[in-house]
Amino acid sequence: MADDKALTPRSEDFSAWYNEVVARAELADHSPVRGSMVIRPWGYGIWENMQRALDDKFKATGHENAYFPLLIPMSFIEKEKEHVAGFKPELAVVTHAGGKELEEPLVVRPTSETIIYHMFAKWVQSYRDLPILMNQWANVMRWELRTRLFLRTSEFLWQEGHTAHATEAEAEAETRQMLGVYRSFMEEWIGMPVVTGLKSESEKFAGAMRTYTCEAMMQDNRALQAGTSHNLGQNFAKQFDLKFQSEAGSEEYAWNTSWGVSTRMVGGMVMTHGDDSGIVVPPRLAPTQVVVVPIYRKEHERAAVVEKAWHVRAALDAMGVRTKVDDRDHLNPGAKFWEWERKGVPFRIEVGPKDLEKGQLCLVKRVRAEGEDRKMFLPEDAVISSLPERLEAFQRELFEAARARREANSHRGVKSLGELNEILDGPGGFVYTGWSGDPSVEARIKEATRATLRCIPDPDFRSDRAPEKCIGGEAPSKMEVMWAKAY
Amino acid sequence: MADDKALTPRSEDFSAWYNEVVARAELADHSPVRGSMVIRPWGYGIWENMQRALDDKFKATGHENAYFPLLIPMSFIEKEKEHVAGFKPELAVVTHAGGKELEEPLVVRPTSETIIYHMFAKWVQSYRDLPILMNQWANVMRWELRTRLFLRTSEFLWQEGHTAHATEAEAEAETRQMLGVYRSFMEEWIGMPVVTGLKSESEKFAGAMRTYTCEAMMQDNRALQAGTSHNLGQNFAKQFDLKFQSEAGSEEYAWNTSWGVSTRMVGGMVMTHGDDSGIVVPPRLAPTQVVVVPIYRKEHERAAVVEKAWHVRAALDAMGVRTKVDDRDHLNPGAKFWEWERKGVPFRIEVGPKDLEKGQLCLVKRVRAEGEDRKMFLPEDAVISSLPERLEAFQRELFEAARARREANSHRGVKSLGELNEILDGPGGFVYTGWSGDPSVEARIKEATRATLRCIPDPDFRSDRAPEKCIGGEAPSKMEVMWAKAY
Repeated sequence: MADDKALTPRSEDFSAWYNEVVARAELADHSPVRGSMVIRPWGYGIWENMQRALDDKFKATGHENAYFPLLIPMSFIEKEKEHVAGFKPELAVVTHAGGKELEEPLVVRPTSETIIYHMFAKWVQSYRDLPILMNQWANVMRWELRTRLFLRTSEFLWQEGHTAHATEAEAEAETRQMLGVYRSFMEEWIGMPVVTGLKSESEKFAGAMRTYTCEAMMQDNRALQAGTSHNLGQNFAKQFDLKFQSEAGSEEYAWNTSWGVSTRMVGGMVMTHGDDSGIVVPPRLAPTQVVVVPIYRKEHERAAVVEKAWHVRAALDAMGVRTKVDDRDHLNPGAKFWEWERKGVPFRIEVGPKDLEKGQLCLVKRVRAEGEDRKMFLPEDAVISSLPERLEAFQRELFEAARARREANSHRGVKSLGELNEILDGPGGFVYTGWSGDPSVEARIKEATRATLRCIPDPDFRSDRAPEKCIGGEAPSKMEVMWAKAY
Repeated sequence: MADDKALTPRSEDFSAWYNEVVARAELADHSPVRGSMVIRPWGYGIWENMQRALDDKFKATGHENAYFPLLIPMSFIEKEKEHVAGFKPELAVVTHAGGKELEEPLVVRPTSETIIYHMFAKWVQSYRDLPILMNQWANVMRWELRTRLFLRTSEFLWQEGHTAHATEAEAEAETRQMLGVYRSFMEEWIGMPVVTGLKSESEKFAGAMRTYTCEAMMQDNRALQAGTSHNLGQNFAKQFDLKFQSEAGSEEYAWNTSWGVSTRMVGGMVMTHGDDSGIVVPPRLAPTQVVVVPIYRKEHERAAVVEKAWHVRAALDAMGVRTKVDDRDHLNPGAKFWEWERKGVPFRIEVGPKDLEKGQLCLVKRVRAEGEDRKMFLPEDAVISSLPERLEAFQRELFEAARARREANSHRGVKSLGELNEILDGPGGFVYTGWSGDPSVEARIKEATRATLRCIPDPDFRSDRAPEKCIGGEAPSKMEVMWAKAY
């Protein structure tokens, strides 16, 4: 690989920059199967840290993991009308197995509502069997021809939560609770601020009653839909006969929710924090948080600095800091620095013969805060003891920088189509306007600008400037909505 | 479900017992897709604990996780001759995707050697890029019509380790190291003793140079192949052009290994420890290690015993003991006891009004050791403080009981075909004999007894009685081998 070539700057071609940093950080690679990617250890390690943090949050909110089949009978997918319309064009279909043609084709799951609610129907008799709060970690398949690693691939890894409740109110509370779990995970772990809100009818999940979303702003000012939480109403329960006997003795359909986030979030992390030197991994997600590079010119210097490097690593490991020593002999220090910068490791420690003499270490942070030195020479103990707090501080700085960038590129109270167009054709970003709720306005704007109605933001995060008129014309506005061009 | 019906005793019909305990412990369920199972939360929780322990062991031995595509081009599978012969009859094939017929059919991975070594070939140039030590946690598909939950299903969950090395010796050392990792995991975590050894030519993995195996004895005296580790030689490297420049400058093919264990181990756990009351989950694998059941007849008693139950839970949780309070009101204590016994929770604590008065708790162990009381009434503090050690002791007892049972059903130094037949037709078990290495002897015995040569046991675990003659006749024996009927 042309690892010695500089990266295309973000300002020049953001899309080329993305492809290059993903490849050169060894996050992922293209596979021989069109549309499918290979997630390499550095990318998978980040995903594992995401999984662990999310899984803890799911379990803390009472969910249990389970596993449902990869293959789903075609007839299941076809039961829910909107669902099949949404997913049929993207299906991969198994027609032959065990050397024979199958009587009924099986689809590789694009999502698992149908088979999961079929199983719930087997397990639920009475209100006492509710709620069911389950999650599965799985691969899913939605056929794509134009692939972008992590952002748009035929196969991707995700989690899909599926729940069943006795009442509509409980299902709605669950849907919103999981939106909140996603929001806090994305902000606290990925350092990626999100606007949460409700999708319009035309943008909601195929088969849902209501879809809530997390929308993040990438550095090119486009929106990334990073996670969704659906209140499915009784749509699937009716198709899959998911009924229960209520406490009063009547037979009722259950209320379902589903919610998912995927490896797409790795792409979101890259486009939120990366710079022209490579990706930047927030400390909480970094498989390696600190890399220690021993520096020596002569062979007689080697033993002492390498020993010190391992000593530092042991001290950091004992404090719960994930640390690696890069003692490869065939690379010079500059090549190592460059490699770990591309991979986005939060801190680097350099240790050479002079540092040994002075009892110091050289600490380098992946992204400097204002006023910070590029290289900090500090006593060894001070470096070691301060690293846990420095990692947390860096985590916060990344989030704050991303939030400041998003705010700088958010346009509130936009009143005319002309102004909307001007922003979307120019700098881009999140544009807030009033909306009457008329779908034809939404369609017209999408047609004209290729931007979509990303969400009706959560009242909690809504601008105070209540819009008076719908962006589409003279009709009164019923709600504030947010528009953006999206991935 | 007919939860109130007694289980079929193991002695009456082991196979029926297995199906019943798996269903009634809610480990798994049949799905509407023939051959595919649903792993329910209790079963998946056990699998998660297996995964966590194995993953730690893989990482401690230098392996990293990655993820490769689910779908593999048919032409890849066809490259390695023995490999395709072994797997072709079991393939599930995607012929249509995105609304079109594919130019080349894609198979749902039955195992991933082909696509992984194709990618390794992209990443490896020099000896400095070696070794590659990777693992993936994934679902795989091998079409089956006769399904048994966990033991034989079309789709199953597993891990597959894949490595590439510069020398044959390194690959062989890796193959054996991972066999050792499996052995220690199975013995220390599942409490399932295994005989490790080499597979014969006819039983090895399709495409391997050498296959090592872990063979466990189930309670019906049949063998369960619980994990395998393969030295693949250069078979795949040659087909996928996985070459590197050696330190001396020559171009050489890499040496590969692969190794895997699956959800089948959950079935092994059931058939190793289960009894006529249900399954028994070894403490280290139990999602819930202790269940606390509050007992009360009158409503005024309820508050105090339920409060005590939660207090006990908090104290145990703080000590790292995974504890649950079963305070469901619509079930009587007997029904709860029965349910948790079926699910194999290691310890139950009962707490009623009398126990409160006396400051005691009633502790019940899922399987009594010799001389232990069924119900142990002990001071509250004594119960709480002793539970971590009791759990570890129970873990050891389960392993020792399984080992004693296996030893009692192992037949060493068997010299004649008559004796071999008699054992295999009668009590069954593991039968050790001499073997000349002649495949026709192996084929003949398989034909006559339906038992297979399970392995050539590791010299370390080999009987001292060096056999003089091959079991097949007058030829001198070259090695000791172990025979059994197998799952």
